[in-house]
Amino acid sequence: MGKENNSFDKQIIPLRDKIDSIDTQILSLLAQRQGIVDDVVTLKKTHSIPVYHPAREEDLISKLRMQAKNASLDPDFMEDLYRVIIRKSRVEQTDKMEHKGVRKGAKILIVGGDGQMGLFFNTLFSKSGYDVRTLGEKDWGNVHPLCKDIDLALISVPIDKTKVVIQQLARHLDPTTILADLTSIKENPLNEMLNSHSGPVIGLHPLFGPTSASLDKQIIVTTPGRHPNQCKWILEQLTLWGAIMVQSSAKEHDEIMGLVQALRHFATFSFGHFLHEKNTKLERTLEFSSPIYRLELGMVGRLFAQDASLYSEIIFSTTERRLLLRDYVESMSNHLDMLESNDKPLFIKKFNQIANWFGPFSEQAMRESSFLINKLIERF
Amino acid sequence: MGKENNSFDKQIIPLRDKIDSIDTQILSLLAQRQGIVDDVVTLKKTHSIPVYHPAREEDLISKLRMQAKNASLDPDFMEDLYRVIIRKSRVEQTDKMEHKGVRKGAKILIVGGDGQMGLFFNTLFSKSGYDVRTLGEKDWGNVHPLCKDIDLALISVPIDKTKVVIQQLARHLDPTTILADLTSIKENPLNEMLNSHSGPVIGLHPLFGPTSASLDKQIIVTTPGRHPNQCKWILEQLTLWGAIMVQSSAKEHDEIMGLVQALRHFATFSFGHFLHEKNTKLERTLEFSSPIYRLELGMVGRLFAQDASLYSEIIFSTTERRLLLRDYVESMSNHLDMLESNDKPLFIKKFNQIANWFGPFSEQAMRESSFLINKLIERF
Repeated sequence: MGKENNSFDKQIIPLRDKIDSIDTQILSLLAQRQGIVDDVVTLKKTHSIPVYHPAREEDLISKLRMQAKNASLDPDFMEDLYRVIIRKSRVEQTDKMEHKGVRKGAKILIVGGDGQMGLFFNTLFSKSGYDVRTLGEKDWGNVHPLCKDIDLALISVPIDKTKVVIQQLARHLDPTTILADLTSIKENPLNEMLNSHSGPVIGLHPLFGPTSASLDKQIIVTTPGRHPNQCKWILEQLTLWGAIMVQSSAKEHDEIMGLVQALRHFATFSFGHFLHEKNTKLERTLEFSSPIYRLELGMVGRLFAQDASLYSEIIFSTTERRLLLRDYVESMSNHLDMLESNDKPLFIKKFNQIANWFGPFSEQAMRESSFLINKLIERF
Repeated sequence: MGKENNSFDKQIIPLRDKIDSIDTQILSLLAQRQGIVDDVVTLKKTHSIPVYHPAREEDLISKLRMQAKNASLDPDFMEDLYRVIIRKSRVEQTDKMEHKGVRKGAKILIVGGDGQMGLFFNTLFSKSGYDVRTLGEKDWGNVHPLCKDIDLALISVPIDKTKVVIQQLARHLDPTTILADLTSIKENPLNEMLNSHSGPVIGLHPLFGPTSASLDKQIIVTTPGRHPNQCKWILEQLTLWGAIMVQSSAKEHDEIMGLVQALRHFATFSFGHFLHEKNTKLERTLEFSSPIYRLELGMVGRLFAQDASLYSEIIFSTTERRLLLRDYVESMSNHLDMLESNDKPLFIKKFNQIANWFGPFSEQAMRESSFLINKLIERF
């Protein structure tokens, strides 16, 4: 632009000023809106009403979509915008609500409480008025007094230490204390807890990392052990913090997690491994990348930004998992012949079989990922 | 809620009414904003100014972030919101601008113009005032008159037909006609075009599907062939429609695409293949899925919602690609020993080597994917 477009510059400035002034008004309305949402929170606190109110949210969205149509605005655009606003409002409400404790004052011992996940739950419980104490690696000399009169012992240690920790801890627990764990495998730890402790037992697996901002809409799998009624308040507390609880048997959990965690992480690891072997030029590759590949490569890069030992624990946790991964490598080797003989028709035949098997999920995946790809373009 | 909360209901209604009234005001401001953006478009059209103005966008975002801070609003939230608004405004502007033709009236023949990609470009060129004609599979009897006086012949046929089509077409072209192709491999087609045609030649590879809503921020790789100056207006036209042009040699393009397309698609295919082999319960698995796995599984499902033959063409297009995929399968087989011997230390060693190699990209990937995961939670 510049010299050759003096008249353009002259004409565009007042238009941009008008846009800026509208944006300032929108911002001021959003600040007002936040103030009123704060009043709603206070009211909900007083009446112990949960924050998440799906019907009200969908109602609000429907109304705005209709208003948008009448104002010649794109309803999808309006919905996009309000999903951002509503989510923000929900997170802030949850944040302000989360002090509420279902069983305030209950004594909780977090074993491995100096680890990241332990600290995460320590903060949550403390904020909600629980009496939280921590048992770190160096505190085992104090284990007996630490276990005195506690209502809940929550184990948050690496997978390979879970068994020993349960055994060492259980002998110090009262039979009324609830014993729970956060391990990402469930069958072995749950059996160990049931064998070592005679009181209430419950398994929990939070499907998120300790760097999450809140529990809002995060999934926690729960595998009942013994005396579920006495464990109920823990599930209620997690729900109140915004988590979605999924109940399962330990066996089903471990089977599904073999695919969801071990297999997926191993596949991602192998892909990164190969890119490294081939010494791929990542920067240049990204310049050639559609948003979807950028996203897929991002998933690979993301893995390697995290802790190696965490992933080794997940991948090598059980013999079943290692056998599953062996099956996977062998399944891939079966494609070698197809590649060698350039057998396109076989590929197409297999592809269509798998597509049939995926069924309606493919369409849903297409929709969801297209939405995300648009978000990616929007941002980067 | 209900009976036990009569007083809550009474108190919340006026608050919700206030929120609704604010939302209506915001909506009305957004409609006004759209009106002014329309004026900006008219002005830009008159002065032939491109829609995308990164500096103005970043400026606007910075200003709003500062205003947000002063109004006790979260600046990240404000930015999120305005990324949606700005993108919408950009897409609408591009949409209204795209009628502008750099070389209006130029005659274009789209070979394979009855395919999806051909139709996509037919619509774009036609809207911008070009004289577009189509050569479908049944029109080869008419090839000579169709080629008469054309400025550009654009080949948009499946990979395996490209060679023959170039040879059959080229003998009917004037030496002044530009010959271009949209094939997703570039080395063979480009050589074929240079050998068969004595005039200007250029290779193009649009990195997006024909279902995209617009060219806004979409990447097109261009591989120069002959007489680049005479081909320049095509690149200008694509840029004006919003595309980002990346220049490359055909050789570099094919190497990078081997990884970006063939390897990635093959890895995804193999993953879906294995889930099918194991007869995974997809629905239940999704209930156990963190947003990130949901996203990763979505990427797999997405592949199988698309056309098998498209992917077979990409994967089996050249011998080099099939050798690359063989290397990949063999690289995975090398992990079998590690799994068999439960060698966690080796895994950790390899993991850290790869993490080092990824370098700062991992952090970036973490940031970008975290952003998307939040969007996913927001929406679903």
